[in-house]
Amino acid sequence: MDNVVVIAGTASNGIAKNVARLIKSELIHIQSKILPDGESYVRIPEEVANKIVVIVQSLYPPQDKHIMELLLMMDAAKGYGAYKIVLVVPYLAYARQDMRFLPGEPVSIELLLRVLHREGAEMIITVDPHKPDSLVAFAGKYVIIKPTKLFADAIKENPNDIVVLAPDGKAIAAAQELSSILKTQYTFVEKERDRATGEIMLKSVRPFDFKNKKVIIIDDIISTGKTMAQAAKFAKENGAGDVIAAATHLITSGECCELMKASGISRIIGTNTIPNDKAELIDISGMIAESILKGL
Amino acid sequence: MDNVVVIAGTASNGIAKNVARLIKSELIHIQSKILPDGESYVRIPEEVANKIVVIVQSLYPPQDKHIMELLLMMDAAKGYGAYKIVLVVPYLAYARQDMRFLPGEPVSIELLLRVLHREGAEMIITVDPHKPDSLVAFAGKYVIIKPTKLFADAIKENPNDIVVLAPDGKAIAAAQELSSILKTQYTFVEKERDRATGEIMLKSVRPFDFKNKKVIIIDDIISTGKTMAQAAKFAKENGAGDVIAAATHLITSGECCELMKASGISRIIGTNTIPNDKAELIDISGMIAESILKGL
Repeated sequence: MDNVVVIAGTASNGIAKNVARLIKSELIHIQSKILPDGESYVRIPEEVANKIVVIVQSLYPPQDKHIMELLLMMDAAKGYGAYKIVLVVPYLAYARQDMRFLPGEPVSIELLLRVLHREGAEMIITVDPHKPDSLVAFAGKYVIIKPTKLFADAIKENPNDIVVLAPDGKAIAAAQELSSILKTQYTFVEKERDRATGEIMLKSVRPFDFKNKKVIIIDDIISTGKTMAQAAKFAKENGAGDVIAAATHLITSGECCELMKASGISRIIGTNTIPNDKAELIDISGMIAESILKGL
Repeated sequence: MDNVVVIAGTASNGIAKNVARLIKSELIHIQSKILPDGESYVRIPEEVANKIVVIVQSLYPPQDKHIMELLLMMDAAKGYGAYKIVLVVPYLAYARQDMRFLPGEPVSIELLLRVLHREGAEMIITVDPHKPDSLVAFAGKYVIIKPTKLFADAIKENPNDIVVLAPDGKAIAAAQELSSILKTQYTFVEKERDRATGEIMLKSVRPFDFKNKKVIIIDDIISTGKTMAQAAKFAKENGAGDVIAAATHLITSGECCELMKASGISRIIGTNTIPNDKAELIDISGMIAESILKGL
């Protein structure tokens, strides 16, 4: 696409490069540095006047720095005469604060989407946000990519040997989808607090026989890894063989991967929305390129 | 003021408390935490419906985190039914990138001011921004506070014994103002690169006799401290006695205060727009309270 340039932001994680190749557009690497006082500086080193500018910037930690740099890149693109700005935000930050759970709270994701639109983003492409409905707060066009098919491709197992497990109620939809593609079964556990000890216990709502099964636990985000580790232990205690953890966003902090492996998880599969050198990452650039080709 | 509440942001540095007392308004401390994944969470713990909400948040490092928290606080205040939002931003970040010095750059300060206004700030009160003219990019009302008088009050010296020195061309206006209040003389130096060695040298444009003078070097920001240290050395080499460094914003990084003291500076005076435990900080809350009482 001659009229499109793809800008690799400070947090593009290789996706901009792959997308530019797939849609046959020019790739521009943003120039960036941190000034001595800690402020971010960015510059688009090549002319983008009258072009559709696709900016790729994932909003993983440090989220606020990556958000500010995205806004600065958008301002730079507009100042350079960009015809239209499309954002590829593989990991969308602040997606968990999608309502006022208590009075006096902000609706962080609405704030973020509002600012991005007001600052000139006409379209936003994102991957598996925590609650897809929260994207309606974006006043432009939006595309949500679900990488479930890519997970299915990565799990080359006999359907009869495996079962998909949702580690909590919110992950049931993902488990259903993955099991349907894999043509296998799924089940789920729920968290329950023991009233006497205060401890979080897992219970299987529909009792399920894990014996001799390879269990694939699926979720949208792995953050501390505790939910995954608990579910893995539960599966193991109930006779499961191998346990695989799969999640779109591995926003893993500290010793999270170690914790998961210690609980019996043999493979951790994620996507490249967030860098992670302790897990297998599937590239989602192909699905993003497809949605750009369809959407522009 | 019964119809006003003052919110102490995550980076209020004591100013909100003092301002609330001075304007006789309720003070609310924001609730805040960093979530396990690194995102900021804020909450206004008390009702602010139909009130004029004054949010005090300085934008010193980490600037982007403080900016995001400010935006979240504004969203929370609007969600709570605030009648009007007034921002007190003692230190305004990104004020040095106030034009496109090179094509493809953003105008960072315009972006920041535009976002703050679009997100609901009707008025902004700030202290000595790097270029006061850049505030015209704010579409609401703005007030700029100059703390020069407070510096004059802090320097209790005989006018005949002192001279005010601008460490570079940009600081001349501040030096003029301070010397006029102190009823003393001022002079300035300029930076010059030695063409042979590449070294930065200072030259006095108007030769000045520093002998037996106490020299007060004034600037708007001290960041690395190098400019101040160079000017102090220059003054000392030209016979100066005591040297005092005064600047509104001490955004001092690392060993900056040590560097300045090693160059012969005996006192470092700043204001409480930015925390600093190695310098004398003058409280600017009084001037902010005054401008609120006048401006609302």
